[in-house]
Amino acid sequence: MGVVVQHIERAEQSVIDRLGACGVATVHEAQGRKGLLASQMRPIYAGARLAASAITISAPPGDNWMIHVAIEQLKAGDIMVLAPTSQCEDGYFGDLLATSAQARGCKGLIIDAGVRDVADLTAMKFPVWSKAIFAQGTVKETLGSINVPVVCAGALVNPGDIIVADDDGVCVVRREEAAAVAEKAEARVAAEEGKRQRLAAGELGLDIYGMREKLAAKGLKYV
Amino acid sequence: MGVVVQHIERAEQSVIDRLGACGVATVHEAQGRKGLLASQMRPIYAGARLAASAITISAPPGDNWMIHVAIEQLKAGDIMVLAPTSQCEDGYFGDLLATSAQARGCKGLIIDAGVRDVADLTAMKFPVWSKAIFAQGTVKETLGSINVPVVCAGALVNPGDIIVADDDGVCVVRREEAAAVAEKAEARVAAEEGKRQRLAAGELGLDIYGMREKLAAKGLKYV
Amino acid sequence: MGVVVQHIERAEQSVIDRLGACGVATVHEAQGRKGLLASQMRPIYAGARLAASAITISAPPGDNWMIHVAIEQLKAGDIMVLAPTSQCEDGYFGDLLATSAQARGCKGLIIDAGVRDVADLTAMKFPVWSKAIFAQGTVKETLGSINVPVVCAGALVNPGDIIVADDDGVCVVRREEAAAVAEKAEARVAAEEGKRQRLAAGELGLDIYGMREKLAAKGLKYV
Amino acid sequence: MGVVVQHIERAEQSVIDRLGACGVATVHEAQGRKGLLASQMRPIYAGARLAASAITISAPPGDNWMIHVAIEQLKAGDIMVLAPTSQCEDGYFGDLLATSAQARGCKGLIIDAGVRDVADLTAMKFPVWSKAIFAQGTVKETLGSINVPVVCAGALVNPGDIIVADDDGVCVVRREEAAAVAEKAEARVAAEEGKRQRLAAGELGLDIYGMREKLAAKGLKYV
Amino acid sequence: MGVVVQHIERAEQSVIDRLGACGVATVHEAQGRKGLLASQMRPIYAGARLAASAITISAPPGDNWMIHVAIEQLKAGDIMVLAPTSQCEDGYFGDLLATSAQARGCKGLIIDAGVRDVADLTAMKFPVWSKAIFAQGTVKETLGSINVPVVCAGALVNPGDIIVADDDGVCVVRREEAAAVAEKAEARVAAEEGKRQRLAAGELGLDIYGMREKLAAKGLKYV
Amino acid sequence: MGVVVQHIERAEQSVIDRLGACGVATVHEAQGRKGLLASQMRPIYAGARLAASAITISAPPGDNWMIHVAIEQLKAGDIMVLAPTSQCEDGYFGDLLATSAQARGCKGLIIDAGVRDVADLTAMKFPVWSKAIFAQGTVKETLGSINVPVVCAGALVNPGDIIVADDDGVCVVRREEAAAVAEKAEARVAAEEGKRQRLAAGELGLDIYGMREKLAAKGLKYV
Repeated sequence: MGVVVQHIERAEQSVIDRLGACGVATVHEAQGRKGLLASQMRPIYAGARLAASAITISAPPGDNWMIHVAIEQLKAGDIMVLAPTSQCEDGYFGDLLATSAQARGCKGLIIDAGVRDVADLTAMKFPVWSKAIFAQGTVKETLGSINVPVVCAGALVNPGDIIVADDDGVCVVRREEAAAVAEKAEARVAAEEGKRQRLAAGELGLDIYGMREKLAAKGLKYV
Repeated sequence: MGVVVQHIERAEQSVIDRLGACGVATVHEAQGRKGLLASQMRPIYAGARLAASAITISAPPGDNWMIHVAIEQLKAGDIMVLAPTSQCEDGYFGDLLATSAQARGCKGLIIDAGVRDVADLTAMKFPVWSKAIFAQGTVKETLGSINVPVVCAGALVNPGDIIVADDDGVCVVRREEAAAVAEKAEARVAAEEGKRQRLAAGELGLDIYGMREKLAAKGLKYV
Repeated sequence: MGVVVQHIERAEQSVIDRLGACGVATVHEAQGRKGLLASQMRPIYAGARLAASAITISAPPGDNWMIHVAIEQLKAGDIMVLAPTSQCEDGYFGDLLATSAQARGCKGLIIDAGVRDVADLTAMKFPVWSKAIFAQGTVKETLGSINVPVVCAGALVNPGDIIVADDDGVCVVRREEAAAVAEKAEARVAAEEGKRQRLAAGELGLDIYGMREKLAAKGLKYV
Repeated sequence: MGVVVQHIERAEQSVIDRLGACGVATVHEAQGRKGLLASQMRPIYAGARLAASAITISAPPGDNWMIHVAIEQLKAGDIMVLAPTSQCEDGYFGDLLATSAQARGCKGLIIDAGVRDVADLTAMKFPVWSKAIFAQGTVKETLGSINVPVVCAGALVNPGDIIVADDDGVCVVRREEAAAVAEKAEARVAAEEGKRQRLAAGELGLDIYGMREKLAAKGLKYV
Repeated sequence: MGVVVQHIERAEQSVIDRLGACGVATVHEAQGRKGLLASQMRPIYAGARLAASAITISAPPGDNWMIHVAIEQLKAGDIMVLAPTSQCEDGYFGDLLATSAQARGCKGLIIDAGVRDVADLTAMKFPVWSKAIFAQGTVKETLGSINVPVVCAGALVNPGDIIVADDDGVCVVRREEAAAVAEKAEARVAAEEGKRQRLAAGELGLDIYGMREKLAAKGLKYV
Repeated sequence: MGVVVQHIERAEQSVIDRLGACGVATVHEAQGRKGLLASQMRPIYAGARLAASAITISAPPGDNWMIHVAIEQLKAGDIMVLAPTSQCEDGYFGDLLATSAQARGCKGLIIDAGVRDVADLTAMKFPVWSKAIFAQGTVKETLGSINVPVVCAGALVNPGDIIVADDDGVCVVRREEAAAVAEKAEARVAAEEGKRQRLAAGELGLDIYGMREKLAAKGLKYV
């Protein structure tokens, strides 16, 4: 504890943007159904959608001191990912910190704890995915670390990993797998488009995906 | 397990529509305060309101294969009701399945588990009441059954029962009681209208409902 | 149980208004980080913001009789605060009660239980902060008390205390401390404005708040 | 509501006893993995194990009046199954009711709510499976029903169904399926005994169950 | 925050002992069904039963510094009651603190958070009622207060109030009401003994309590 | 998915044993308050205490096929650590699997899901720390992986890491840090022994740890 890693690798911006365009559900499928943060992580307003490089924050419960330290480490296009060292839903983050983060080009916050000033954050279009909305204040007494691997809402996040977030939740993509995942995700989007048209025309998934035989083989009975 | 019941009885459409017009809270009261699904069942967007005949789905945890089977059994105006065989919040359902269901005339989904692609579903105006919003994918390996009685979010739902759903949650009405419940619900709506006007004018419920004597008899003391 | 206290002290309206203008997070900080109701208390729609004097209701689980009694005790500008005597999420309150309460000048409801008819309440602009949205009906059989001290969502609320509520949740301010808290809260708002401008210009909290030395003293290492 | 069904069918005692001897996990498997109550249902002390015919109780939240009514309907060897009409964890049941029930030959209680006096109940060897242990008292004001179908902890229980309960939780078996399930359960017990000996000797399930080929076919890679 | 009140009033020991002899469920009934802490408060081992005067601790989340301060304020026969200022389940307390507290005559701990070293505490017969068992450590950085009123697990506890705790949970009795509650509780115990014998002999509560008429008047139907 | 890593590094047995002797709370402190699994992980019986090398299992929800695969990879003294790929409380593990695992020298199971046959497991002295006890059965349809890094109950566990578990919960120690942590943990045990004696003699932590000045400096007021 008490370490700030100042230099981290980030994925190429073009790859990050391609992941963001595909969205959480598609990216999660494309990388083999891994990397989702737990379903408790909800956006404070509907419609936000982004991908960004993770600046990670390991912080004590009820202590937001390290967010100030993290903001200095932000580059434009980054997102902060805060994991408390034990379970907490205090409001670590509000409009002043958002103003500061936004001034540094920060695209949002993922926090397995609480957030406050959500009316202001919504007006600022600063998206946050959090476990709670809670005005409970925090102290600035105990150190944590910046840009170390953290487990956030059940998922391992390394600094520089790509966070994809939208109304469906939050997914993490390993930096070194980002390009490959983007490719697979885009392939899924393309493939889905054709299926969507056939399904919209009334064709059945049972036929499109050729499921009838396998269902029969497993013993499905129509009565 | 592994049974698809292809022919079910449905209530008359006019009765279904009358229930939908009354809304969940009124219908629930009209049938003697029974039939509510648990409060964890929340709409993915505000403002949806409907009544429809239930196509029931009993599905394994984390396996959405049977939704493909269910879609073939849909008639226009139906709603799907999915109960996992053990507790689960995976995202069984997304925009492709919704496209397919909507093409068959399906009015929505009630699922005691998760849903994903909620931004798309909202844009499509395909309402879902669910326990979770979660991008977690599912497999297609294990059979379940269609149109068997299920317990969904604590309520027994038979195929062909009427589902009433709005911002207050979800209620099930037995098919054979539907006409009687609709009548009682409409009577409540009519009766409430008169009371609403008197209450809006400042008259007190204590007086309108004649509660003062019973309260005094129970021993209420004003100090 | 079974007592209605008819005369309570209220804070001055101007003080109440000043607290409402500051909002929950600021007021909570200004009074030393106390008085927050638990984070389960969420508004039924976004954007409501108010401060009002508390009319308290201690009610049995699943029994909303005392709300009718409470409405008679309301003065214009009050808010009702309902704490069930044991844990409950039934829908104690709906559009008829809201019509009645609104007719008496009531500004809203804080309830550590459920509420229903939320589409109507939203249309009426009658804000409610609650633990649940649930159509489950209640009975009128057992007495409770009005205007006694209650513990609501983990916070002690005395009748006449000031409730401040917005999208961040709900905070209670002791009536006798209200003026002092309002003053401190306004001072915070003023002080924050200057900081917001500096932060928006890209200055760091680390520098504005002079944190670098204390962090170094605690042993923070930059690598 | 407000109905007491006085005559119900029960399964043969010998069948009930055979189910009890097999235990919850085996019976649940034998009947096709259905009928389990939710995992929140825990015994108040370890080591109890029984099977019994269900006397069902539908009761309002926080109101234990109907338990008194139910006790009169008990026959020796029955168990009471209480489902509140909305979520509740109040202590409906304590040592006096247990004394009364035990005097009538009742074997225990399944309650999707709370229980109290658990030290006494343990001393009396009166087993209870409940959602909570909570001293919160209840009232006697509102009617419920006895021996109607109920949904208890997510499972449908009809009066006269067989309840099997042990340290693993609670399972319900339809009365009309009880004999067939007992037969299958006993077959499982017998089959498992042989497997247990082979496994204890160090043989692998991979070989006993012939799983290696199917795993390879699915693509499992050893590295 | 940051205040230690050194002199508090305590109830007479004989009254405290009488309350302890009656147990939580009886005391809770005797004082009108109030004062229970929430059902999440569970003993770390079965069979502990006590009553004691409360030394209250208001502590920050994840910070157990104030327990050291509290121990100095203990008199023989006291119990500590810790309420975190925001939700927390960290392990504030373990065997060293228990050794210290026990050396000062402390009878136990009530904590709306976590505890650790429970095997040691059990061996020491130092009972704890807590929300969680969790080894998570805490810091000693931020002040709290001792012997101020706190809300612990949903109940208001004043310093010097009497805590009654057993396997059913935890109840608080106001110091100034303690003698009257003890008297009522003992009367209940005496009255229950006679009923227990009649119930054990097979007499029904329906008859002993004269419920049949009231049930019929409410409309209960036997079929 | 679908990978079995057959050769993993393990820590020296003597180091593992030393960690086990220190217990969870001490080891967690000794390694800087990291590595705890969430507090939901509870032992199925009191008094078990161990340390062992982790064989990790990443398994689909409701599918226990990979446990059979894992058992072949066990060496005497190992423990299995199962993390489902999405949230699940099904009973993956029972007495047959325990018999098989125990025959291979396995010391226990850590599972962020459910377990069943707990009466048998207790009799066998096969300890399990789990999120739930639940008889719900699982299928054998979908692959997972063995001996890959997993996030279990919020903590990252690598194959070969050391699991320490007792009545306080579960902690993971990195294999490469195990010797250093054992040393620090033993130092803590030794240091605590001296403090325990002083505390038992009535000396105060305030004095032993020299806290009075720091408390005064922070502003603690005695009144």
